[in-house]
Amino acid sequence: MKLCLIGYGNVGYGFVRVLLRHGLWLRERFGFAPKIVAVHDIRRGTVLAPEGLDLEALAAAWVENRDLSELGKSGAGLDAFAVIQECGADAVLELTPTDLRTGEPAAGHIRLALTAKKHVVTTNKGPVALFGKELLSLAKENGVQFRFEGTVMAGTPLFSLVDFALAAPVRRVRGILNGTTNFILTQMETGKSYAEALAEAQRLGYAETDPTADVEGFDALAKIVILANMVLGGDLHPSDVPCQGITKLPSSEVQRAPKEGFRWKLVVEARRTQDEVEAKVGPERLPLSDPLAQVGGVLNALSLELDPLGAVTIVGPGAGPEVTGHAVLSDLLAIHRGLR
Amino acid sequence: MKLCLIGYGNVGYGFVRVLLRHGLWLRERFGFAPKIVAVHDIRRGTVLAPEGLDLEALAAAWVENRDLSELGKSGAGLDAFAVIQECGADAVLELTPTDLRTGEPAAGHIRLALTAKKHVVTTNKGPVALFGKELLSLAKENGVQFRFEGTVMAGTPLFSLVDFALAAPVRRVRGILNGTTNFILTQMETGKSYAEALAEAQRLGYAETDPTADVEGFDALAKIVILANMVLGGDLHPSDVPCQGITKLPSSEVQRAPKEGFRWKLVVEARRTQDEVEAKVGPERLPLSDPLAQVGGVLNALSLELDPLGAVTIVGPGAGPEVTGHAVLSDLLAIHRGLR
Repeated sequence: MKLCLIGYGNVGYGFVRVLLRHGLWLRERFGFAPKIVAVHDIRRGTVLAPEGLDLEALAAAWVENRDLSELGKSGAGLDAFAVIQECGADAVLELTPTDLRTGEPAAGHIRLALTAKKHVVTTNKGPVALFGKELLSLAKENGVQFRFEGTVMAGTPLFSLVDFALAAPVRRVRGILNGTTNFILTQMETGKSYAEALAEAQRLGYAETDPTADVEGFDALAKIVILANMVLGGDLHPSDVPCQGITKLPSSEVQRAPKEGFRWKLVVEARRTQDEVEAKVGPERLPLSDPLAQVGGVLNALSLELDPLGAVTIVGPGAGPEVTGHAVLSDLLAIHRGLR
Repeated sequence: MKLCLIGYGNVGYGFVRVLLRHGLWLRERFGFAPKIVAVHDIRRGTVLAPEGLDLEALAAAWVENRDLSELGKSGAGLDAFAVIQECGADAVLELTPTDLRTGEPAAGHIRLALTAKKHVVTTNKGPVALFGKELLSLAKENGVQFRFEGTVMAGTPLFSLVDFALAAPVRRVRGILNGTTNFILTQMETGKSYAEALAEAQRLGYAETDPTADVEGFDALAKIVILANMVLGGDLHPSDVPCQGITKLPSSEVQRAPKEGFRWKLVVEARRTQDEVEAKVGPERLPLSDPLAQVGGVLNALSLELDPLGAVTIVGPGAGPEVTGHAVLSDLLAIHRGLR
């Protein structure tokens, strides 16, 4: 399988590292030996390599912050669209930064790649939250796959679980899908103020300099819209979903709850009712007996509810370059194996 | 897909009920419309129905405890082996009671079916714990599938998760796989003696009249051997694995632990070392911060450890006729869809 990476930031680098470590196992076990034939990054430049790039060299170029054109045939002057069209890849990895408002430029890259009959794997929440069903249809029309395991819970398998392991429809999902706010709330329980907990999260790299997308619930919102539409068959736009973050939650309330047998969590939920799908994002005061109340720090968790299983809960890491890189790799492996 | 059921007890009935409820969805979504063309049960008799049995009638016969031969062409006089050979099914469901010592008669049924190039789905731990790798090889030689999702954690997807959602090898598994003992320990924490907690479990149908297989750890042992061999690639026999149950655990110790920040659990573990696979079963005093310490009542949980994800934990029901029936259905659906 020939791959084209659009975007070579943390996730792209994480993907290359995971492929370096598990490439031999994947080849022996599944006959899966992907080659990276093109990489385009708006800051790091562009390289075309029809024979496949050396992965060690590609990883070193990231660490040393070298221009990618040094690794093979330079693609200087080509934009992402031209690279997708000319790279000769079977699959395009859309790994550019997320824009939750427009989904661009990722959505455009994905549309072009699918129309050109290339499989697409993305970790970018924007296009899936805004145009997920349209992109799935476009993939189907063109006889290729569109997969997005890394958009929710990073590398913790979720869509693959739903796609390949269940024999009944999911009725409701409920979980904690933003590690940053979960870390902040866990810190606040120990007596820190919101500002102190946020500063600690920023110091550890869990929160960005501008933490708005996490603390106002927008990241969790994008994820629950993806689940509502792609797992429950809804047709929601993010603006349809009530969304509240954690910034208005008094520290005193977060600190008092555990003494009363409760814990505050930023909870997402989506459910299918008689004829529609509803979703919401907001802080909830959960009894300690709720499995979600036990999910601490940056961990994520999601309960899937379906007949006859009741609730099945999966708990795992929700962020991290290599973890998200694993999601990309598992999507590519599914495509290679013809799982669909 | 034409199915033959060998064994029509609780799990067989649970399977039929789940198929009744979700059959329409499965047909619309996956074009999957299995027909049951033969059922053999040592107590309930035998029926052959090349055109497929009416599922409502089959369920009613179970409830009313009627002889199966009333539902179609009688197979009186045919044993399980003859039924497997003559039923014309594409897939055999081996759902007879478990014998953890010999794996029979299930192992014989499975060998015959695979040799006759029929797919096999089983929920029977005995043959998988004792002969799992041999049976997988036999399936491969004959170009058919051998699947066993229901043997561990009932319908909570586990083998499908490993088979279809991971892109790196699992290094260690660790979990709580026996709901009966977990229920008893949870009850003991509230002040009950072992005998009182066991009686309560028996009253609720969680423990059998002879609870030996659960409380001495033999059920958990069979499950960890299945995981060690089928997920981690080991070659263990149950007699290779240190196994201790909960009968020697003093109630006072179980009751005191939570006050000290711990909880006693019957933990199973298997891990791959440099060149071998090791496993064990026994009670452990877990800190409350361990995710497994939070798994109460009859729930089961398993953490899968792999690079780069660290631990991914799945929590769900570990027993129940319909839940186990869902496992059978999900295995059949995987076969129908050509997932392998």
